[in-house]
Amino acid sequence: MAKEITSRHENYSQWYNDIVNKAGLAENSSVRGSMVIKPYGYAIWEKMQAALDKMFKDTGHENAYFPLFIPKSFFSKEASHVEGFAKECAIVTHYRLKTSEDGKSVIVDEDAKLEEELIVRPTSEAIIWDTYHRWIQSYRDLPLLINQWANVVRWEMRTRLFLRTSEFLWQEGHTAHETKEEAIKEAELILDIYADFAERWMGLPVLKGLKSPNERFAGAVETYCVEALMQDGKALQAGTSHFLGQNFAKAFDVKYLTKENKLEYVWATSWGVSTRLIGALIMEHSDDNGLVLPPKLAPVQVVIVPIYKKPEQLEAIRQKIREMMNRLKEKNISVKFDDRDTYKPGYKFAEWEVKGVPVRLAIGPRDMENGTVEVARRDTLEKEILKMEDIETKIENLLEKIQDNIYQKALAFREDNTFTADTWEEFKDRVEKGGFVLAHWDGTAETEQKIKDETKATIRLIPLEHDREKGKCILTGKPSEGRVVFARAY
Amino acid sequence: MAKEITSRHENYSQWYNDIVNKAGLAENSSVRGSMVIKPYGYAIWEKMQAALDKMFKDTGHENAYFPLFIPKSFFSKEASHVEGFAKECAIVTHYRLKTSEDGKSVIVDEDAKLEEELIVRPTSEAIIWDTYHRWIQSYRDLPLLINQWANVVRWEMRTRLFLRTSEFLWQEGHTAHETKEEAIKEAELILDIYADFAERWMGLPVLKGLKSPNERFAGAVETYCVEALMQDGKALQAGTSHFLGQNFAKAFDVKYLTKENKLEYVWATSWGVSTRLIGALIMEHSDDNGLVLPPKLAPVQVVIVPIYKKPEQLEAIRQKIREMMNRLKEKNISVKFDDRDTYKPGYKFAEWEVKGVPVRLAIGPRDMENGTVEVARRDTLEKEILKMEDIETKIENLLEKIQDNIYQKALAFREDNTFTADTWEEFKDRVEKGGFVLAHWDGTAETEQKIKDETKATIRLIPLEHDREKGKCILTGKPSEGRVVFARAY
Repeated sequence: MAKEITSRHENYSQWYNDIVNKAGLAENSSVRGSMVIKPYGYAIWEKMQAALDKMFKDTGHENAYFPLFIPKSFFSKEASHVEGFAKECAIVTHYRLKTSEDGKSVIVDEDAKLEEELIVRPTSEAIIWDTYHRWIQSYRDLPLLINQWANVVRWEMRTRLFLRTSEFLWQEGHTAHETKEEAIKEAELILDIYADFAERWMGLPVLKGLKSPNERFAGAVETYCVEALMQDGKALQAGTSHFLGQNFAKAFDVKYLTKENKLEYVWATSWGVSTRLIGALIMEHSDDNGLVLPPKLAPVQVVIVPIYKKPEQLEAIRQKIREMMNRLKEKNISVKFDDRDTYKPGYKFAEWEVKGVPVRLAIGPRDMENGTVEVARRDTLEKEILKMEDIETKIENLLEKIQDNIYQKALAFREDNTFTADTWEEFKDRVEKGGFVLAHWDGTAETEQKIKDETKATIRLIPLEHDREKGKCILTGKPSEGRVVFARAY
Repeated sequence: MAKEITSRHENYSQWYNDIVNKAGLAENSSVRGSMVIKPYGYAIWEKMQAALDKMFKDTGHENAYFPLFIPKSFFSKEASHVEGFAKECAIVTHYRLKTSEDGKSVIVDEDAKLEEELIVRPTSEAIIWDTYHRWIQSYRDLPLLINQWANVVRWEMRTRLFLRTSEFLWQEGHTAHETKEEAIKEAELILDIYADFAERWMGLPVLKGLKSPNERFAGAVETYCVEALMQDGKALQAGTSHFLGQNFAKAFDVKYLTKENKLEYVWATSWGVSTRLIGALIMEHSDDNGLVLPPKLAPVQVVIVPIYKKPEQLEAIRQKIREMMNRLKEKNISVKFDDRDTYKPGYKFAEWEVKGVPVRLAIGPRDMENGTVEVARRDTLEKEILKMEDIETKIENLLEKIQDNIYQKALAFREDNTFTADTWEEFKDRVEKGGFVLAHWDGTAETEQKIKDETKATIRLIPLEHDREKGKCILTGKPSEGRVVFARAY
C-alpha cells in the first residue's frame, strides 16, 4: 500500500494527492469542485471542531445558524465586500423542476423564476448584519459574540482537495461591540485562539501578523492572520480574524443606544478557519509513507494488530488486551483493535501507517508468552518491545512525546527555512528556493504587486511586534518601517 | 414578559409563534422561508445532536460529508424519488455575478451559465449513491454505515419556524448492506434509537409503526416512523427510517462481490431527523407562561437569580454560591448566575420562565441569613425554600424528577387522547376533536385518500405489533387486517 505513494521529492503535489486518497480522507465528487469528505477525514474535522468550539465557548461565544441563501441586493450594500466576494458564486434563479414533455427527464420550470436571485453564501457578513439590525438596539445587547459552523460556496476554477474547493466547511465568527478598542481586542483574542489551536493541537507552528492592504479581507479595516510553512517551502494561511470597523454597521444601519442615550454605529469583527486546515495538517507532518497525525487530532490514537494463525490465538490476544483497552479508554485515548480476519497483519500495518495512526501495537504468540507488546510510533517509525506492565501509562506518555516531537520538527523546519534578504537578487534567489523571506518593503500596493508579478511571492504578513528595525525597500530602495514576511503561498 | 404570550386556548398557533419569539429560539430571516436559529434555539439543537450522534456512533455509524449540490440528471435515475422530491427545490443555474453597466448594482453574468443545473440537496440519496458506486466493490466494504449532519432545502410555500422551513438542519443516515434482512434490521435499529431519543431525552412519548404506501418516502420500499401527539391533538412525525430495498443500488449501479464471488446489488436504508424536533419539543411541553424544557436538553438547567440592593450584597451572594456552582458543574449540570445589573429580579424571573429553564434558584438577604435558597421548578411552577446543605444533590434529584414528570404528563395526555372508532360517524366526530384515532381500514390507497379528503385525517402509522385484531373498514366496510392510527397532522 505505502509503496503507491509518490515521494515528496519526486512530485510534492502528487504526494499530497496520494496521501489524501490512500489515507481515505476525501475525494472529488461528481459535482465539479465539490469534494466528498470521507469518514476518516471527517473524523479529523470533528476533532478540530470540538477543540475550537470549546475555545470559543470558553471565551463567551455562542453558536447560531443563519440562512444559506443571501439576496443578491445585499451584496451591493458594502462596496468593497461585493468586489471581493460576490463575483464567483453559485446563483439560485429558479425554485421548481418539472417533467419534460417526453417524460424522460426533469427540466427547469421557467415559470418558477425568482424575482430576486439568491446567492449561496460565500461568507455570511451580509445576511448576519441584516439580522443584527434587528437584534441590536441598546448597549445592553452588546457585545454580541456569535459563531456559526456552516458550509460555504465560492466558485473555484482550479480546485484541490481541502486546500481549495468550491464548497467547504468552516466556522465564521461575527461579533458586534460598543467601542473600536473592544472590537480590536476581540480580533486579537481570536488570533491568539487560532495560533494556540494551530500550535497545541495541530502541531503547526505559526507566525502571527497583519495582512497588507492588498491581501486584506474584502470589507475589513484590518486583517490579522496566522501563517504556517509547508514542507515544500510554500506558506499556508491557517486562519484570519478581521477588524471590520463600522463598515458593515453602516451598510446595514446597525446602531445602538449608548449608556449616555446617544445613537452610535457598532464596531465589528469576523473570523474563520475552514476544512483547509486539514490540508495544512496533511502537508505539514506527513512523509513518504503516508499521513502523520498529531495524537490530539487523530481519530484513532492507538491501533492494536493481533498476529495469529488460529482463531484460539486471536481469542487469547483479545482476552489479554481487553483490560488494557478499557484503561486506555478511561484515559480518553481512542483505541482500535483491528481483528478483521479478511486482511493479513502486513496489510494492516501498511494501512494504519498510511492513515497516520500515532501508535501501533502488535501482539503475537511470542509476546503472549513473554508478556510483551511491540510498540511502533508513526512519527519516527521507531519500534520497541515493551513489557505489558503499566503499558497504558507508557502509551499515554508516548502520545504526548509524539505530539511534542512533530511540533518541534515542524518548528525546526520553519527556522531552517526562514531567511532575511537585503538585496533584490538575494530576495529573488531565496524566494525561488522556498521558505519565509523577511525583507524590507516600502509600504505601497504598487511595489507589493510588482514583487508578486516578478517572483510570485506575496506579503504573508506584517509582524505584530512593533520593535521593527527600519530599512530600505528591497525593490525600490525607498524607506521601510520594518521587515515583512514574504513567501509563495497556497 | 410572560403576559405577552397568547394562551393556548385562545390561539394555539399564535401561542407557538409567541413562544418561539419570546424564548429567543428562532426568527424569520430576510430570505423567504429561511429561518435564523438564534443562540438559545441552536444550543438546544446542539444538545440534540450530541445525544443522537453518540447513539449513532455507539452502534457503529461514522459521519461523513457529501456535496450540497446535486446534478439535475441524478434525480431522474430513481423514478419515484424524482416525483417525490426534485420538484420544489432551489436550482443553481449560474456561477458568476458582474457589476451592472451603471455600476450601481450587481447582476447575473449570463455568460456564466452552467451546462447542467445543480439542485441544492433536498435529501442526499442521489449524490451519496453516486459516491457509493465508487466505494463499494466487495463484501469487505459492507456494511457501510454513514451519517451526515447537514442543511437541506425544500422550497416551501407556507412555512412555520422549525416545523416547516425551506432550509432546515438535519442528520441523514445512508447505509448499504449485503442482505435484505440486515438492511431491515438496520432500519428497525434506527427506529428504536429515534424512539429512545424522543422518550428519554425529549420526554416525548411516541408510537412506532410503518407508513401506509401513500405516506411512504419517495424511493422507499417501507418507511418506519415515530409519531407524537401535540397538545392541540394533532400528530407530529418525529423521525423516519426507510428500508430502500435495492432501488438506489439499481439506479446507481452499486453491486458487490459476495463471498461466493457473485455480483449482487446491495440493500439500503436511509433515515433522518431534523430541527423540526425543536418544534415538537416546544409544542409538547410548553404552557401559557412560555417554554418548558426537559432538563436533558436544556442549555441552562439551573439559573441563579440574586436579590440584592447594594453591590456588597451581590458580592456576598457570589461568594456564597461559588462552591455550589462548582459542585453542580462537576455533576455536569449547566448553571448560570444571572448577575446582570441592567435588569431587576422580576424581569429576570419572567425571562427565565419564558425560556423554560427547569430550575430557578433565588437568593436574597433573608436566605443569606438563614442559609436557605428558594427553589422554583418550571414544569409545575412550584416553589419551596430549601436549606443550602447538600443542595447540589437535591437539585440533581429534582432535575431527574422534572425530566420524568414532563414525560409522564405527555404520556397521560396521549393516553387520554387516544381513541378507537368503529363507525364512520364516530370516526369523523373523533377526528374533529383531535387525538389519535385507532380505526379499521381496508388497506387501499383510494380509501385512505377519501378519508383524508373528507376529514383531513391521514394514516399516521400502521402499528408494528402483529397481533392485531381483524375488522371492517370504517369507510367501506371491507375487511381490515387490523386497526391503524389516524390523526390530523403537522
